[in-house]
Formats: sequence, C-alpha cells, structure tokens
Amino acid sequence: MDHHGRREAIARALWRVVEQRGITQLTMRVVAQEAGMSLGQLQHYFASRTAMLSFAMDLASEQTSARVHQRLEELGDRPHPRDVLRLTLAEMLPLHSDARATSRMSAAYVLEALHDEAVHEQARRGLIQGRALVERLVHQAIDDGYIDSGRDPATETNLLLALTGLTPLIELDVIEPQDAIAAIDVHLDRLFRST
Amino acid sequence: MDHHGRREAIARALWRVVEQRGITQLTMRVVAQEAGMSLGQLQHYFASRTAMLSFAMDLASEQTSARVHQRLEELGDRPHPRDVLRLTLAEMLPLHSDARATSRMSAAYVLEALHDEAVHEQARRGLIQGRALVERLVHQAIDDGYIDSGRDPATETNLLLALTGLTPLIELDVIEPQDAIAAIDVHLDRLFRST
Repeated sequence: MDHHGRREAIARALWRVVEQRGITQLTMRVVAQEAGMSLGQLQHYFASRTAMLSFAMDLASEQTSARVHQRLEELGDRPHPRDVLRLTLAEMLPLHSDARATSRMSAAYVLEALHDEAVHEQARRGLIQGRALVERLVHQAIDDGYIDSGRDPATETNLLLALTGLTPLIELDVIEPQDAIAAIDVHLDRLFRST
Repeated sequence: MDHHGRREAIARALWRVVEQRGITQLTMRVVAQEAGMSLGQLQHYFASRTAMLSFAMDLASEQTSARVHQRLEELGDRPHPRDVLRLTLAEMLPLHSDARATSRMSAAYVLEALHDEAVHEQARRGLIQGRALVERLVHQAIDDGYIDSGRDPATETNLLLALTGLTPLIELDVIEPQDAIAAIDVHLDRLFRST
C-alpha cells in the first residue's frame, strides 16, 4: 500500500471508531489499534489528532459526493432538479450504513470545530461549499422555471440544508427512515409545486 | 448548599465544560475541577459519568422549557400558535448564550447516546416528549382552523423539528442569526398561510 492508500486506510479506521465508539473515544492510540499499527507508525502518516481528523472528514465528504454522483447518473441525462435535491438530501441522512458513518463523522466534526480554530475553519469552508452547491441548484431551478421566481434562493437553501435536522430523530429511533423521506418529499413538493 | 443544589451546581459546571471545551474533554475529573471540588466529592453526588451527564441533560431540558414558558407569558393570554412555535423553535437554536449552552449540551448528548444504551433510552424519551408537545400544538392549530386540515400533523411536526438542523450553519458562522429566523418565518408562513 502506498502513502496515500495507507492514509485512507487510517481514515477508515477513524470512521469506524467514531461510528462504533464515538468521538469521546477518538485518540491517536485507539485509531492506531483499529488500523492495526503502532502509535509510532500512525504518527508517520499524521502528525496530530487534528490532522488525522481533517483528512478523515475530507475523505467522508468525498465519499458522500461520490455516492450522490453515482446515484445521479442512474437518473439519466437531464434529471429533474427535484430528484437531484431529493437524492442529495437523502444521502446526507443516516439512512444506510455508509451514510450513517459519514453523518456521524460530520456531527462529531462540527462539535470538535467549536473548540478548535483550525477545525472550525476547515468545517466552515466545507459547509460553505456544500451550501453553495445547493444554492446553485435552487438558482438554476428558478431560472428554468421549476421553482417560483418569488422564492428567495438563500432562504430556500437554508431550509433545504435544515432538513439534516431530521438526523437526531432517525438516530434515536423516534421516527422511521420512511418518515424522514416523507418529510423531505412534502418539503420539496411545497418548494416545486408553486410554479 | 443542599444536596440538590450541589448537584445543580455540578451540572452547570458540566455545561461549561461541554460549551467551552467540548464533549471530548468531559471527564469526571475535569468537571470536579470546574466545580471546584475533588473527584471524591463529585463521586458523592454522581456515581458515574453517565449519571452526571443524564442529570445535566435533564436540567438543560428544564431550563429550555422554563425559558420558553417565560417568553410565552410575555405573549399574553391566548397567543397565536404561530408565535408559540416561532418562539419554541428559536429557543432550540444557539442564538444566545443560554440557548447555545443547552444546544451544545443536547448535540453532545445525542452523540453520546449512539454508544451508550442507557443514555440512548433517556435521550430517546426526551426527544419523544418534545416531539409530542410540538405535535399537540400542530393538532390544536389544525382543530382551531389556523393550519389547513389537509396537512399531516406527524410530517409537519417532523419538518418543524428539522429546523434545528440550522444549528451547524449558525455554529460555524455560515449564516447569521437573522438568516435562521428568516428561514423559520418562511417555513411558518407556508404552514399557516394555507388556511
């Protein structure tokens, strides 16, 4: 395995620790153990816990994007913007094993960001990029006449991203996955039906 | 200070640790230090980290309820259900210092719940109770003709609670507090205007 491959393997070990044991258990020692190497070997790839966490978060974002892109291709050449948003939002919720891992990773990362300036900056940049992507979709859908032009793209984008707030309800078994999807559908119906 | 008073003082020390240093720093030793007592003294009030965390979370929920009730009284005798929901949702977001403390406490608690069965049960019960409260409000507003009777109360309740998903956007300075309030207002307008 090359240097980059080894770093990815460590990031995946970190995800497993976060998903199965929680962020409070996340130390370099525990990740080294999970990755099947010594602490010294791990430190050869990552100088600090923060560096390791940042890399693992970037990889989680890439994985989520890759999942969304793959599923978008299944929608054909010119997918309806409602379907694009539905699929993107669904992949941000912990509705299957891979999405659960990245969702927990992301929740842990936000909490960590509140007390670490470097993490805060990286998390902020990531969220701004993700938000800009959704806002472009909303803008385009307005331009193409799918969404009423009276809607404010910034507010609609914030409301779409807020749907990730269904996460605690799903994680604590308060609602079922299909309830979350139903809520997303009702929200999207309301956003798109106004045309 | 009596036994209960001392437990509350410890819970507040725990909040400060969670708010200022994060859940990863939350050990009984750190909380004892923050509360100005020895670890042995702390253990006289709480047998375990989980017991301490549960009590602190219950107190945070009570504090949030108290804040909401106090502000509801300012709305007068028969407040409009839209105002009740607006106020309740706003108090769940980290928009001022007290709300930020309880919001961070609650996020940390959900993460902890994923890896501790006792915490999971308590967090689940708390979320079910909170959800039932909002659903009763929605039901009543439908019965009183404020919300269209064609709306599904369960889905509308899930969508209202999902608005707490604005939290990471606020915490990471991606949107301003007034953007969050604007999003809540647009959502509530859409929920109530259909009558």
